[in-house]
Amino acid sequence: MTERFHRIPLGPGGEFDLIRRLLGPEEALSKGIVLGPGDDCTVLEGGMVVSTDMAVEGIHFREDWVTWAEAGFRVGAAALSDLAAMAAEPMGILLALALDPSKTPESAVRVQEGVSDACRREGIQIIGGDLVRSPGPTVLNVVALGRSDAPVSRAGTEVGDDLWVTGELGGSGAAVELWGRGESPPPELRERFVRPRPRIREAAWLAERIPLNGLIDLSDGLAGDAGHLAAAGGVALVLEEGSIPIHPGVKSGWDAPFDQLRLALEGGEDFELLLSVAARTLDVWVHSFQDSFGLCLTKVGRAVEGEGVYLEGLEGEMRPLEMSGFNHFPGEDEG
Amino acid sequence: MTERFHRIPLGPGGEFDLIRRLLGPEEALSKGIVLGPGDDCTVLEGGMVVSTDMAVEGIHFREDWVTWAEAGFRVGAAALSDLAAMAAEPMGILLALALDPSKTPESAVRVQEGVSDACRREGIQIIGGDLVRSPGPTVLNVVALGRSDAPVSRAGTEVGDDLWVTGELGGSGAAVELWGRGESPPPELRERFVRPRPRIREAAWLAERIPLNGLIDLSDGLAGDAGHLAAAGGVALVLEEGSIPIHPGVKSGWDAPFDQLRLALEGGEDFELLLSVAARTLDVWVHSFQDSFGLCLTKVGRAVEGEGVYLEGLEGEMRPLEMSGFNHFPGEDEG
Repeated sequence: MTERFHRIPLGPGGEFDLIRRLLGPEEALSKGIVLGPGDDCTVLEGGMVVSTDMAVEGIHFREDWVTWAEAGFRVGAAALSDLAAMAAEPMGILLALALDPSKTPESAVRVQEGVSDACRREGIQIIGGDLVRSPGPTVLNVVALGRSDAPVSRAGTEVGDDLWVTGELGGSGAAVELWGRGESPPPELRERFVRPRPRIREAAWLAERIPLNGLIDLSDGLAGDAGHLAAAGGVALVLEEGSIPIHPGVKSGWDAPFDQLRLALEGGEDFELLLSVAARTLDVWVHSFQDSFGLCLTKVGRAVEGEGVYLEGLEGEMRPLEMSGFNHFPGEDEG
Repeated sequence: MTERFHRIPLGPGGEFDLIRRLLGPEEALSKGIVLGPGDDCTVLEGGMVVSTDMAVEGIHFREDWVTWAEAGFRVGAAALSDLAAMAAEPMGILLALALDPSKTPESAVRVQEGVSDACRREGIQIIGGDLVRSPGPTVLNVVALGRSDAPVSRAGTEVGDDLWVTGELGGSGAAVELWGRGESPPPELRERFVRPRPRIREAAWLAERIPLNGLIDLSDGLAGDAGHLAAAGGVALVLEEGSIPIHPGVKSGWDAPFDQLRLALEGGEDFELLLSVAARTLDVWVHSFQDSFGLCLTKVGRAVEGEGVYLEGLEGEMRPLEMSGFNHFPGEDEG
């Protein structure tokens, strides 16, 4: 990447309005920084990429839903997914942990084991950290460090590009919805929540074969992350309703097509990849991808002139997608 | 640094016992990692150094003691101090913030301004981050990114080395002690707590002039951090009671020499530097250092065979120093 990127625009939503306020007016990037706030990772000269992800007990995980080790695994995997979203190779993780001493030391050890497990699966390890006391909920912060000779930002989508997504969507959000109703999710949905697999090898494989214009991981949900991709690229994105790959556990558990689509569009934390490539450049690689990874790769839409994200219905009707994904900070108009 | 460091041993203390448990058995470092857990920063191939620091409301800062901007400034400065402790040049900071939406967005904006202010003072900026909701206390995590062609670890102290410390000690701990009693610290002590200055330029200046064998910043207190330096170097350290530079605000506020010494040894978060150098190599540079920075530089002891930290009294009597510094996780024997 020879271009010097500045700030990447974020999509709509109360959380992102606050982030925009926090960022303040854009400044020139300081020495050694290639890509600043707004993308999945910051990029430093030399190809180092780094991201920071925080998870809070009661918000991102709950002791009555998951074990401490699963909570650790999830946060580790989520952080590594930010590296996948840059098509970067992972180097290591820093884990900072704030916890209530009444749960110490066993919960700390279990959380660390979970993060370690997520690291080991990608051939890396925990290479630093911090441990402090919390008078309240357990808080984890995971920093993912990686590198790439050609990190892929969110910002390069061009009008006419095809949009593709890996895997099947909505499984993780479906598990959360069931827990929220007091039900236990079936194993295939629970697994999507507790053992997400960051698509690191998949992103590298794709980036080796064709130019990826824009790349983002699905943490806020397809609609929300498509909003970020659209804003970053200065384009509008059209998602084709009939093409969106819905997780089989969602299809079998929710009868109404509306609910299935809602979970696939708005369910967060699937940690699949959404990418934009020049039209018809990826089609020839689909079978080879699916054979290599046992994971589907689906063309879900296209980039057009304009802004925002649109859902194209089965009859060709277009409607703007309301912003979605899990909004930590509703705007004032949303209460 | 051509040597490939492995894990750096930590000093005694319940918090560090737990960290040792968390780290588990030592593994070979994965590809691209030069120095793993246990030092102030992790070091990557190519000279990138990185550290992660978490701070929790009610533990590391309190709204009735400091403003939100001051809390942010402190955490930013503390993270940058980890770069000073490697004699590294700062590149940027990632800020992750978990906060209660009822305080949003003003406290978030203030915290961010404080961290930004600490960055600007060192010529860098916030280059990434995360923002999430907390149902409990505000939690900040700051990742400091820097680089050095020759990062200085904690591990190189040799028997016979002189020990030196920058600045005057105990001021920050004295402010906390006064707040703890319900008193307001005088401005010169409050300033030491709320506006610590990471010794980045000082560390670089020293490293340019003489070989630094061991280097650490004082976050846990002189006694505790000397314990880490001793453990990392495989030596014992002797601190000379009469040489320890006590902050003038401590001298004027505490009559008993015992209390003054206690604050200088055990008060945390002075963010000065403790360094070990070959005997008599630094003496000739002291005046030039003090002229350059307006900061004192004091020989406080020496490295000898053995382990642990000893205080040498005014009559030459030696006694082992109990471990100290702020212990987040007392061991079982300490309750």
